[in-house]
Amino acid sequence: MSAIVELEQDRVVEGVYAVAKKERRSTRAGAPYLALELVDPSGRIEARVWSDVDLLDSRFAEGDAVRVLGRVDRFRDRLQLEVRSLEPAEGLDPAELAPAIRRDAEELDGFLEFLAGELSHPGLKATVARFVADDELRARMRSLPATADGHHGYAGGLLEHTVAVATICREVAQLHPRLRADLLVSASLLHDVGRTIELTRGPVFKPTEEGRLLGHVHLGLRLIEERAGPLEASLRAELLHAVGSHHDARAARTAEASVLYHANQLDAVAATRPVPD
Amino acid sequence: MSAIVELEQDRVVEGVYAVAKKERRSTRAGAPYLALELVDPSGRIEARVWSDVDLLDSRFAEGDAVRVLGRVDRFRDRLQLEVRSLEPAEGLDPAELAPAIRRDAEELDGFLEFLAGELSHPGLKATVARFVADDELRARMRSLPATADGHHGYAGGLLEHTVAVATICREVAQLHPRLRADLLVSASLLHDVGRTIELTRGPVFKPTEEGRLLGHVHLGLRLIEERAGPLEASLRAELLHAVGSHHDARAARTAEASVLYHANQLDAVAATRPVPD
Amino acid sequence: MSAIVELEQDRVVEGVYAVAKKERRSTRAGAPYLALELVDPSGRIEARVWSDVDLLDSRFAEGDAVRVLGRVDRFRDRLQLEVRSLEPAEGLDPAELAPAIRRDAEELDGFLEFLAGELSHPGLKATVARFVADDELRARMRSLPATADGHHGYAGGLLEHTVAVATICREVAQLHPRLRADLLVSASLLHDVGRTIELTRGPVFKPTEEGRLLGHVHLGLRLIEERAGPLEASLRAELLHAVGSHHDARAARTAEASVLYHANQLDAVAATRPVPD
Amino acid sequence: MSAIVELEQDRVVEGVYAVAKKERRSTRAGAPYLALELVDPSGRIEARVWSDVDLLDSRFAEGDAVRVLGRVDRFRDRLQLEVRSLEPAEGLDPAELAPAIRRDAEELDGFLEFLAGELSHPGLKATVARFVADDELRARMRSLPATADGHHGYAGGLLEHTVAVATICREVAQLHPRLRADLLVSASLLHDVGRTIELTRGPVFKPTEEGRLLGHVHLGLRLIEERAGPLEASLRAELLHAVGSHHDARAARTAEASVLYHANQLDAVAATRPVPD
Amino acid sequence: MSAIVELEQDRVVEGVYAVAKKERRSTRAGAPYLALELVDPSGRIEARVWSDVDLLDSRFAEGDAVRVLGRVDRFRDRLQLEVRSLEPAEGLDPAELAPAIRRDAEELDGFLEFLAGELSHPGLKATVARFVADDELRARMRSLPATADGHHGYAGGLLEHTVAVATICREVAQLHPRLRADLLVSASLLHDVGRTIELTRGPVFKPTEEGRLLGHVHLGLRLIEERAGPLEASLRAELLHAVGSHHDARAARTAEASVLYHANQLDAVAATRPVPD
Amino acid sequence: MSAIVELEQDRVVEGVYAVAKKERRSTRAGAPYLALELVDPSGRIEARVWSDVDLLDSRFAEGDAVRVLGRVDRFRDRLQLEVRSLEPAEGLDPAELAPAIRRDAEELDGFLEFLAGELSHPGLKATVARFVADDELRARMRSLPATADGHHGYAGGLLEHTVAVATICREVAQLHPRLRADLLVSASLLHDVGRTIELTRGPVFKPTEEGRLLGHVHLGLRLIEERAGPLEASLRAELLHAVGSHHDARAARTAEASVLYHANQLDAVAATRPVPD
Repeated sequence: MSAIVELEQDRVVEGVYAVAKKERRSTRAGAPYLALELVDPSGRIEARVWSDVDLLDSRFAEGDAVRVLGRVDRFRDRLQLEVRSLEPAEGLDPAELAPAIRRDAEELDGFLEFLAGELSHPGLKATVARFVADDELRARMRSLPATADGHHGYAGGLLEHTVAVATICREVAQLHPRLRADLLVSASLLHDVGRTIELTRGPVFKPTEEGRLLGHVHLGLRLIEERAGPLEASLRAELLHAVGSHHDARAARTAEASVLYHANQLDAVAATRPVPD
Repeated sequence: MSAIVELEQDRVVEGVYAVAKKERRSTRAGAPYLALELVDPSGRIEARVWSDVDLLDSRFAEGDAVRVLGRVDRFRDRLQLEVRSLEPAEGLDPAELAPAIRRDAEELDGFLEFLAGELSHPGLKATVARFVADDELRARMRSLPATADGHHGYAGGLLEHTVAVATICREVAQLHPRLRADLLVSASLLHDVGRTIELTRGPVFKPTEEGRLLGHVHLGLRLIEERAGPLEASLRAELLHAVGSHHDARAARTAEASVLYHANQLDAVAATRPVPD
Repeated sequence: MSAIVELEQDRVVEGVYAVAKKERRSTRAGAPYLALELVDPSGRIEARVWSDVDLLDSRFAEGDAVRVLGRVDRFRDRLQLEVRSLEPAEGLDPAELAPAIRRDAEELDGFLEFLAGELSHPGLKATVARFVADDELRARMRSLPATADGHHGYAGGLLEHTVAVATICREVAQLHPRLRADLLVSASLLHDVGRTIELTRGPVFKPTEEGRLLGHVHLGLRLIEERAGPLEASLRAELLHAVGSHHDARAARTAEASVLYHANQLDAVAATRPVPD
Repeated sequence: MSAIVELEQDRVVEGVYAVAKKERRSTRAGAPYLALELVDPSGRIEARVWSDVDLLDSRFAEGDAVRVLGRVDRFRDRLQLEVRSLEPAEGLDPAELAPAIRRDAEELDGFLEFLAGELSHPGLKATVARFVADDELRARMRSLPATADGHHGYAGGLLEHTVAVATICREVAQLHPRLRADLLVSASLLHDVGRTIELTRGPVFKPTEEGRLLGHVHLGLRLIEERAGPLEASLRAELLHAVGSHHDARAARTAEASVLYHANQLDAVAATRPVPD
Repeated sequence: MSAIVELEQDRVVEGVYAVAKKERRSTRAGAPYLALELVDPSGRIEARVWSDVDLLDSRFAEGDAVRVLGRVDRFRDRLQLEVRSLEPAEGLDPAELAPAIRRDAEELDGFLEFLAGELSHPGLKATVARFVADDELRARMRSLPATADGHHGYAGGLLEHTVAVATICREVAQLHPRLRADLLVSASLLHDVGRTIELTRGPVFKPTEEGRLLGHVHLGLRLIEERAGPLEASLRAELLHAVGSHHDARAARTAEASVLYHANQLDAVAATRPVPD
Repeated sequence: MSAIVELEQDRVVEGVYAVAKKERRSTRAGAPYLALELVDPSGRIEARVWSDVDLLDSRFAEGDAVRVLGRVDRFRDRLQLEVRSLEPAEGLDPAELAPAIRRDAEELDGFLEFLAGELSHPGLKATVARFVADDELRARMRSLPATADGHHGYAGGLLEHTVAVATICREVAQLHPRLRADLLVSASLLHDVGRTIELTRGPVFKPTEEGRLLGHVHLGLRLIEERAGPLEASLRAELLHAVGSHHDARAARTAEASVLYHANQLDAVAATRPVPD
């Protein structure tokens, strides 16, 4: 069994992967083939089915787990898997095969709880605690990405990104005592909470219908409004405002909202921009 | 003697201040008056000279230290000083009266040295060390603002902002091991070093002629090029690139340059955006 | 008693108005005065208090109803009222003195009900009906403007603008049978419903604290979510999407959302752009 | 004979179509083929000629009517016609085969006349009447699209779009009595009249050389200037201004010009933005 | 009699000037005064009437020539004329008093003719010749500015700017033989010809009603279309295209149109951007 | 031996060319091939290697000179060379095969010296002279393009563009005596001097690592600072400012910097925008 990250050119491999994308195409000469993206916890690889297309096409759908036999080739500087045979991998949960975070999720989860525990304002502490105590939501943070196809685009990326942005905000609050630290850290911990109902489980991470139309910002505001009972009205508005403007620098009217905007940008570029060898 | 931060409406005060701005104007009815901005280490206040204008006008220039007797009034929700008498304050250095940093400069200076000392790459460490060992440049960092009329616009703001940006970058480098930490921290420590030759001492902090035409970004690159002898060519180019694009997100081509851009923005908004009472 | 719309230059007038704005200023020569904006249902006029400033200043606040004696002057091509005496107008509701809609509010209210009654989709019809049946909300639509200082900036402007946008959308749905008419008309009827909790009653129409931070778009989404129980999930998301993107053309992903965006713009420019004499 | 709208996958069909686009290409392996877009009044379909390429290529040109035998295939989720044989369709006018309006052109023509007839201002009425009475121009409105490859991109789209924009403007003029209704409706009826000399007949709707360089806005202004004899100078300038700024919101200086701009946008998005199934 | 360019502070002067702007204002204390801009061929000066305001106001209008006695003062670093007495200057043409070109208009006129004479393409030569032979239009080019309040904003600026842009274009055509020199030079000679019917004579240079609504670009296209009889259709379209896109870089589709755009910008910045002492 | 500019479809040719680009790709059916761009002093042509791919691939690298036997084909309206055999061309300098300027380089070099010799300000004349006297730098101007893949993208384009921009600036300085002609012409002669260390020799003209990160603007400023010893500080700052803002219109603060910006744009569009046949 070969992990994707270990595949090498010109080798014949056998492995179990999830189908993150599946598209039926034709060559210019008219022959049909399948263009796939296969994933496992270690990474992603493009794959092609050139033979027995109709037969194999009928055996699996996007999102399924499959057992594959094929040969690793190179196409435009990237590895590609030429599939020879393929069958459903019974009894496996495809979401377990989604590309996964490389850092220790336990440790990140612990740090999330530490940051939430540090809060001292009672209303903010209680509001954040309702999210921290929600086991299902916490499980989604460990299994969803921060963005479907941008930064932190792997299972658990949502947890990793949330902890990173909150860590940066906490540092900035220490450097700038004028900022309301509890408001800022609470907003950073909750800023992407809408992702938990915007996206579905891997390997495809497709947005829900509601997610596609309303986006994670609005869905996050809805979740916070449902749980912000313990919070006085004015601070609730500030918290919602910071979360609501975290993708729109010009909408931010408070220092904390502006800081959250830039901390979010900062973590995204740190994760994605090129680092030369 | 009254510190500006302690002035209250409807009081007669006497104090020694520096003249940060001076302009001669006329009322619509044709009477001349002087519009001033007075500063001391604790803050800034607008002032007006309505009587004996010609006499008082001849006694002092923008940038001078003056001894003032006047009455504090309120104009459009802000305090304003109505000057009754004014004379040069002999023997005082006006730069000492510039609005000053509120944090402990010693501590900031110590943290700057700590950050420079942590660097482990020999070429970067040696290059940064040449700046850290330059007592005149270090003194300028303690006496100049980060921007003449934007964020950190007081004496020592340059030092405070530099340390804050470097602290944020160091934190981000710990969160993202893929980043080249020494390059990022070095670039952050030097990113505004051009300010030391762009701006002149307080209380006015006027740009030099060269500063006005070339700007602190280019002047900083020049300073780094003069002192980057110990650094191999490719890393020197990376360092210059990060400093050179710290005001232009789209020009940044490396993760470290992008991170520096956003860390700089982050510290600026944290210092200036409104925090409701 | 003189209505504002009937004031003429060089006349001495007496009237009862509401104070829409009040600011204490000083002349350059140092004398304090009050700069006011006075309103009544017929319009707005700038006013000045030059004498007895401290005495008169203490008698009333922004938002109050006042009885004024003064002289109408002209300043930079606009009429201005020079106040000679001013006292609180006891027993009057200042909101009754806010500039008001010129069209017949009854008729507009009737047309709103007609448009809501025409809907045939059960879930949309029931959702809209909950708003139409809410007497307090309906009263707010008659007493609030569509924008505090833009188009339809008078009491009842919210009702007038809502009916106009819905009328345009209904027309467009008839021209384009491909559009989902009930969705489009429902979204147009509810698009500005958040204004009812964003703004406070006249004459000042100040935003609430929550209104200032969250804006009418988010507040409208919250109101719709609270009342959209009868609506199936996918259509609820479409309705929320159209309302949520009515100020952001690029966010609109459906034809109905795009049409609402442009219908809203169309009614705003029709109400405000200059029509030469 | 098969209408394009009725073609189904995996069927062999025979039909008469017009060639809206024709391009000779090569596969990567070097074999030449023809990439076509075929149209008839019911729609459009991509087509490919893989065999006898040189022979078939010589038989027809872009814009011709052709008789085709082929098989319907699917390529990237869209139907595509694999051409087996193809010959010129003698005696047919290719323009008759252009994709055509689905609404009743007679009815639209009648409504155009109704709107023109409603005008009461003598100069505007007379000016518009000169266009309405121009049979050739009217015929072009029935046979040209509103845009060559955007909204209303089929024969008669120009007429349909013109009537729709004028209908919306008439409605807005009723909602806003401050608007000069005759000016607004006249401008809307003439706003795209330049299209009649910008574009050539279908199936290709290629712009004329002059159309490509000068655009329909300028060409429309020229046509109006030639026929606006009955109109007093100031109103002629207003009419030209509204037509001249109907693609440039910022250039519009009058309410009527702004309304026309947005009504044009509104009709375009209503026709083209996606409507989910 | 004192030319404006020779006025000095603290002198009493008498002169004959034209009134380029006139506005009645009030001081904050309520006293009316007149704010004027006076011009003569040598320059411009702000002026104020503080006394006998009602009497003097009734004696003259914007655009008149007046005889003034006053005292030169300084206000915010600029000279200002305090008017003591003022009366109409009978028998003078105010347009003769507009600020005028400093270069020799004869010489510029000669160079314009030289450039037109150099053209060798018969159609372009004949078209341009119709403008060159139009004495009234030529006179307007000598008496109008290139822009009412931007670059070359004085009588004759239109002629000077036209010759300069054409000179630059001729030079560029020599450097780039691929350009169609006659087309480029013709377009440059005619690019601002619409100004001759957009603007009225000095000293105010107000736009005509048509000028305000349609702008000089469209008016220039109309003039060229009226006179381009000798020109074949395709070249006429090219000429109109270049003139029509000379304020819109993105609309330019030919090299000549792009060059004209930049040559126009180049001459404008060369005339207006600051040159340090 | 066939020059690229003379190649015709369907001919078998033999020639010596340089490889400006080389990429290994696969057809959809999986067969590898090489996609090349071949150049010689007369032009550029795409080429493909379909057979013996592995063998031929090992024989040459991007940037090499090669001897090629092949057949000229047409692909999407452009000629393409189908390579049959290919071998290294020993003993040839590939840079000699880069696409080259068509104008006489001697003449351009002479005009460069003429423009430099005309300068009369001693400091500017001496500074420019240091560049003119640098034979290596002059040789680079004759062998490098002005941009790697934009305007003047052939060997010697840098010299041609520099002379053209300086010629335009000289003309503008004559039209506008207010400009400081020596400053403007000096800045134009040096504006792209950074290209000499940004780009490497043909046929590939790849940027150096430093060039990629720092860009020609900064590298040019560095070269000028190294050689501007004879120039007084204030004029040196003006010269650096004009060169430093020649790609950024908004950064330009002086007339000369703005003129240089537009002259550079003007020459670029004159060289690249389409000229219809």
